[in-house]
Amino acid sequence: MAGAIAYISRDTDGVAWRKQLEAGLGQIDYRTIADGLGNTDEIEVALAWKPKPGLLATFKNMKMIVSLGMGVDHLLADDKLPEGVPITRIMDDGLVGQMSEYAIYWALRHHRDIDKYAASQRAKAWKPEEFVDSIHRRIGVMGLGTIGQDTAKKFAALGFPAAGWSRTAKTIAGIETFHGADGFRKFLARTDILVDVLPLTRDTKGLLNAQAFATLPKGAYFINMARGGHVVDADLLTALDSGHLSGAALDVFNTEPLPADHPYWTHPKVHVTPHIAGATNPRTASSSVIENIKRLRAGQPLINRVDPKTGY
Amino acid sequence: MAGAIAYISRDTDGVAWRKQLEAGLGQIDYRTIADGLGNTDEIEVALAWKPKPGLLATFKNMKMIVSLGMGVDHLLADDKLPEGVPITRIMDDGLVGQMSEYAIYWALRHHRDIDKYAASQRAKAWKPEEFVDSIHRRIGVMGLGTIGQDTAKKFAALGFPAAGWSRTAKTIAGIETFHGADGFRKFLARTDILVDVLPLTRDTKGLLNAQAFATLPKGAYFINMARGGHVVDADLLTALDSGHLSGAALDVFNTEPLPADHPYWTHPKVHVTPHIAGATNPRTASSSVIENIKRLRAGQPLINRVDPKTGY
Repeated sequence: MAGAIAYISRDTDGVAWRKQLEAGLGQIDYRTIADGLGNTDEIEVALAWKPKPGLLATFKNMKMIVSLGMGVDHLLADDKLPEGVPITRIMDDGLVGQMSEYAIYWALRHHRDIDKYAASQRAKAWKPEEFVDSIHRRIGVMGLGTIGQDTAKKFAALGFPAAGWSRTAKTIAGIETFHGADGFRKFLARTDILVDVLPLTRDTKGLLNAQAFATLPKGAYFINMARGGHVVDADLLTALDSGHLSGAALDVFNTEPLPADHPYWTHPKVHVTPHIAGATNPRTASSSVIENIKRLRAGQPLINRVDPKTGY
Repeated sequence: MAGAIAYISRDTDGVAWRKQLEAGLGQIDYRTIADGLGNTDEIEVALAWKPKPGLLATFKNMKMIVSLGMGVDHLLADDKLPEGVPITRIMDDGLVGQMSEYAIYWALRHHRDIDKYAASQRAKAWKPEEFVDSIHRRIGVMGLGTIGQDTAKKFAALGFPAAGWSRTAKTIAGIETFHGADGFRKFLARTDILVDVLPLTRDTKGLLNAQAFATLPKGAYFINMARGGHVVDADLLTALDSGHLSGAALDVFNTEPLPADHPYWTHPKVHVTPHIAGATNPRTASSSVIENIKRLRAGQPLINRVDPKTGY
């Protein structure tokens, strides 16, 4: 008998995942933290999103951890994470598409002056704003993994000059690319709308500080759909209040849920969403998880493995 | 000496058009209504947007009318429009791109529950909404000319099931197409977000009436970036107030500017913008106009001609 598959997330009840896994694997021993995990020695695979630190270490016979998000910082933050158990992450076309949508939505809101038109509507004023040609609205995407590439390419397809920045050099057709510390400054200096999709690692924590925001051109707009840990919040607020940045759409925060007394909630230039830019979609995410469970049971190499050293 | 080129629009001062035309044609005799048209017998070409009815008829030697918008109803509404003078319209990649952006913007706002998240932000509430898979959000584009095809294809590229409806049958890769009166009902019945980009003609005036709105599925959203004349306003308001439609983004109106006492301004489900979905962009629109002025002067056939009978 194959081992149990445990759904370790409080975000949903796990029923959609169960259905997808059963469709791909047949009968399974499927358990959730909500319904009870039973004898945890029987757990072979953990599908995890923000597990309680130390919990995974108690599963003595676990052979694979699957991150239910494409970012794995929520797992690596657990300093008792069992060493030697391979970590894989979902690759979810549906989630990738949603992330791009989120960036496009807020970029267009800024680009097309939608908030000014909303103010005019409240005043019953028929007032066209000055038109900005999209070739003058430069998009910059931080992070050129699956999500970043999809996002940058979709902006380019909409006619915006799109650039990307990554730790190591990458070449992508139609996208201007920058890399490393020196490339970061050049990248920021040419970016009118900054979109963050980087993973959260030791290297990217606090990367968006006063210096980074000051390097963006005056009037730049910031969209964070990656991780709140990239941002020094006080520096972002200063850059918004000084008028250097024209606004920000933030989906992720240093503390989630965003505390009720945080200034972002009421800041007139900040749009807050509750970490919804990309929801894992079992329909599109499950096929590679099913593949990995089959590979695990057949003793074959796993796909979509994460290197705990780089954090992605 | 070539005849004068007259800029007949009150929307801008015409300086950007002058620069583009001079770059393509060299020295020109360029006149604007703002600065005075001089001896109007010298006008060879009129670049027109919403000209005062009867004005164009006074230009005795005019050889070509260029519509500064892709729709030409603003010209055909003039019952003194000089017969026999060819009418051409701009073809503007920049304008086409802007129109698609406008539709994508409002569709994503609806699709991603942005207004619910704004309400949650005002309440400082961290409240993810239920996630709708984009394969369950069917986009329907009315009108499959240059703008409609671009719009439908961009929605398809974002992962939405996209369909289009046109008067005559069309085949477009990746887009489900419908045509004619019978196709119109089937098209509406499968459409969750309706995007109107039809021209305004005798056939399309008042097309969106109570029956059409009732044919859309409950909860459908309506985006009008075509012409206000397609819509029976009282029927749209009824469909919104009954809850059958979930909202509307309206850029165009039966009367423009939208009168201050019109219920759209204050309707909680209606977003009003002042006919800005697609602004003609001289950078991208001028090349085909320059081409046509050269053709006119060389006695060659014109491109982008409009058939006054069909109205496009």
